[in-house]
Amino acid sequence: MQTKNILDEDQLPKSWYNIIPDFPTPLDPPLHPKTGKPVVPEDLTPIFPMDLIGQEVSTQHQIPIPDEVRDLLTLWRPTPLYRAHRLEKYLKTPAKIYYKWEGVSPAGSHKPNTAIPQAYYNMKAGITRLATETGAGQWGSALAFATCLFKMKCTVYMVKSSYAQKPYRKSMMQAWGAECFPSPTPQTRSGQAVLARDPGTTGSLGIAISEAVEDAATHSDTNYALGSVLNHVCLHQTVIGQEAKAQLESLDLYPDVVIGCVGGGSNFAGISFPFAGEKMKGRHMDTDILAVEPTACPTLTKGIYTYDYGDVAGLTPLLKMFTLGHDFTPPSIHAGGLRYHGDSPLVSRLVHDGVARAVAYYQTEVFRAMETFSRTEGFLVAPETGHAVKAAIDVAEECRKTGEAKTILFNCSGHGDFDMSAYDAYYDGKLVDYEYPTELIRDSLTRIPKTS
Amino acid sequence: MQTKNILDEDQLPKSWYNIIPDFPTPLDPPLHPKTGKPVVPEDLTPIFPMDLIGQEVSTQHQIPIPDEVRDLLTLWRPTPLYRAHRLEKYLKTPAKIYYKWEGVSPAGSHKPNTAIPQAYYNMKAGITRLATETGAGQWGSALAFATCLFKMKCTVYMVKSSYAQKPYRKSMMQAWGAECFPSPTPQTRSGQAVLARDPGTTGSLGIAISEAVEDAATHSDTNYALGSVLNHVCLHQTVIGQEAKAQLESLDLYPDVVIGCVGGGSNFAGISFPFAGEKMKGRHMDTDILAVEPTACPTLTKGIYTYDYGDVAGLTPLLKMFTLGHDFTPPSIHAGGLRYHGDSPLVSRLVHDGVARAVAYYQTEVFRAMETFSRTEGFLVAPETGHAVKAAIDVAEECRKTGEAKTILFNCSGHGDFDMSAYDAYYDGKLVDYEYPTELIRDSLTRIPKTS
Repeated sequence: MQTKNILDEDQLPKSWYNIIPDFPTPLDPPLHPKTGKPVVPEDLTPIFPMDLIGQEVSTQHQIPIPDEVRDLLTLWRPTPLYRAHRLEKYLKTPAKIYYKWEGVSPAGSHKPNTAIPQAYYNMKAGITRLATETGAGQWGSALAFATCLFKMKCTVYMVKSSYAQKPYRKSMMQAWGAECFPSPTPQTRSGQAVLARDPGTTGSLGIAISEAVEDAATHSDTNYALGSVLNHVCLHQTVIGQEAKAQLESLDLYPDVVIGCVGGGSNFAGISFPFAGEKMKGRHMDTDILAVEPTACPTLTKGIYTYDYGDVAGLTPLLKMFTLGHDFTPPSIHAGGLRYHGDSPLVSRLVHDGVARAVAYYQTEVFRAMETFSRTEGFLVAPETGHAVKAAIDVAEECRKTGEAKTILFNCSGHGDFDMSAYDAYYDGKLVDYEYPTELIRDSLTRIPKTS
Repeated sequence: MQTKNILDEDQLPKSWYNIIPDFPTPLDPPLHPKTGKPVVPEDLTPIFPMDLIGQEVSTQHQIPIPDEVRDLLTLWRPTPLYRAHRLEKYLKTPAKIYYKWEGVSPAGSHKPNTAIPQAYYNMKAGITRLATETGAGQWGSALAFATCLFKMKCTVYMVKSSYAQKPYRKSMMQAWGAECFPSPTPQTRSGQAVLARDPGTTGSLGIAISEAVEDAATHSDTNYALGSVLNHVCLHQTVIGQEAKAQLESLDLYPDVVIGCVGGGSNFAGISFPFAGEKMKGRHMDTDILAVEPTACPTLTKGIYTYDYGDVAGLTPLLKMFTLGHDFTPPSIHAGGLRYHGDSPLVSRLVHDGVARAVAYYQTEVFRAMETFSRTEGFLVAPETGHAVKAAIDVAEECRKTGEAKTILFNCSGHGDFDMSAYDAYYDGKLVDYEYPTELIRDSLTRIPKTS
């Protein structure tokens, strides 16, 4: 009875899977935040290197992974694909549950998959510092790790609520040589504006993005790096799904259900794009691709599909995506990485087109699933990841009722070593379940800019 | 250029490597703490199951690993063997540095290698609760993880200084359903005695062991589990060295230097015993086997080789080992797992016989090595593990001077996710280097019991 499927290093994908050319009609382009016209590469050069701008709009099916990047990815990749034998037995389900374990990376999540190439392309372009935001801290520590390997500097704006919940994420970033500030900070105009309006704010990804973008735009040696949302970020994460596909193929399997949690969308993109691409090519049409989000920040399930800013201050291009409004500030749930008002345009389009579907869960039921998982499979996962665990368990329990032996694949995107206070809150019965009031969402939706 | 060597699950060793029959003369037996006579199995049955007592004294060369144990070990084993290409390049050394990465286990260290079989044999014997001590928290969380998988209860006495330094290790144990108390506690006679003598004590492994042994001895449903020191614990850890040996063999290599840090000795035993056994059989006689300890608790480098208690209260059998005196309380360094007055009798004998040798380091130089490691290889390791990293770097730097292309193997025994406050202290320049005053050691040595 095999527990996990392992690939050799030379089976690490040689190229990233680009889903853009799979869509039946072209994507709606990003629009300039001031002119409302489609963004041209020159608009982005102040904050991104040309190689990444190229990847953002590429229509090549496969984009080669540079050797230097592949070499660094082998520090932890390919990652193991686990068969959750003990969880299946506990659930008495005929389903086969597989999870891709991304917690083995030095930073503890899938985030280094894109941090490494982003740092690499920026280094190649002569950039010496990267500025970024982080929610739960997984992305900030991943970029700190990656920039450290390339001997670059790194500045991280960490959402204030997460900064307080997880002080050791900041320590981790500092150990890799990065500096980390609780956002909003008084150091940027965007931060100052938010603090003037709401001094007690717990922050949000949207605010932190504004600060990091401003930092990059105002310093010539500095570029901006985003841990999710953008096309090139989703692209870099496709090593996950490509590996998982190969691992399942080696077992003569193809998944019936593919699951990932969604904040900005990158880990979901990583596990699902190779399978979503198949669907758009007319193959394996019945694959159920499931995006899981918190009820406290229900972008895909309660947002609208339209153009909106990626950040609070309106500094980023307008992106066609599901959004709750760019100034929507979700409550301070423990899955800090899922507190984003918008979503990857690629993921949004998949949900809009019906290629993928979305569900939302309360945090208490998510932690209950995490408890089940840790007490059967052993691993303590991050609260973000817990959303995918919960969905996988739900599907498996449905299979117990119907008798279907579905093959379920989910992305186990990160460990919970820095989320122990969240586990404490759960075991102490102190978790609060938020369903964001529809009228408040309706309010923030009114401030989405009008585009023709 | 391969980064890591991976074995298939079926290459996980099928038996443990027992070093006892390799010694040229018999080992000195444990002595009863009251009578001073050699311990008989019946003396140990109040706290250990018969299977483990049997392993403690077995002279079989190979002891089969039960299928149920092997099956659980595959949750993270075999572990990868890394080639530290980037560290070598940074050090400009002709040496080849390999490290066995044990941080991929659910509890984050090598400790589950023995927690799983210990919980298994106790479960088989009808025991429903295990009591134990923990220093840095790695062992306590490993046992919490293992007992959880077998649906047993678990009580952990955690050295008070570590409990304060690493609150989230306690949370981790609780997440797996264990209870964890700062030791000394007022709940045991041993704890009460220490608190009466020194209310402000920071605790020690020796004290915590007394409490756990007393708990087990006074409850019929409860046994004691030790995370290091004993023969059966060292035995279970030999999966590490056996895998590493096979992994190096697949590269046509045999190590010139084998390195592990030493607290009680189990991770050192794990990596080194298969190689020490070769030496005692007259093969590969020039292998340098290096045990690394802190100057703050210099058991192997400043202790004496004699019979002493394993704990402060004198409840355990007398063990022939290197010791600083059973009531020696080391200062509160960050490598809490290395704060033990004694050492594994098997490891002690190897050092006494000259099969292995010992070195001691200050914590600041250890953290400097950890910084070098994290900024080249990426992984943030535990301070205990940092001692092995420091020794590996020292050997590699020596090779740079001599031009020797030695093959260095070290046990990278655990990650530092729960040691971020220690990293902070280092980067804030707040680490204190302790060399324990020789006269104080001389004092505690006078209280070692006389044995003929």
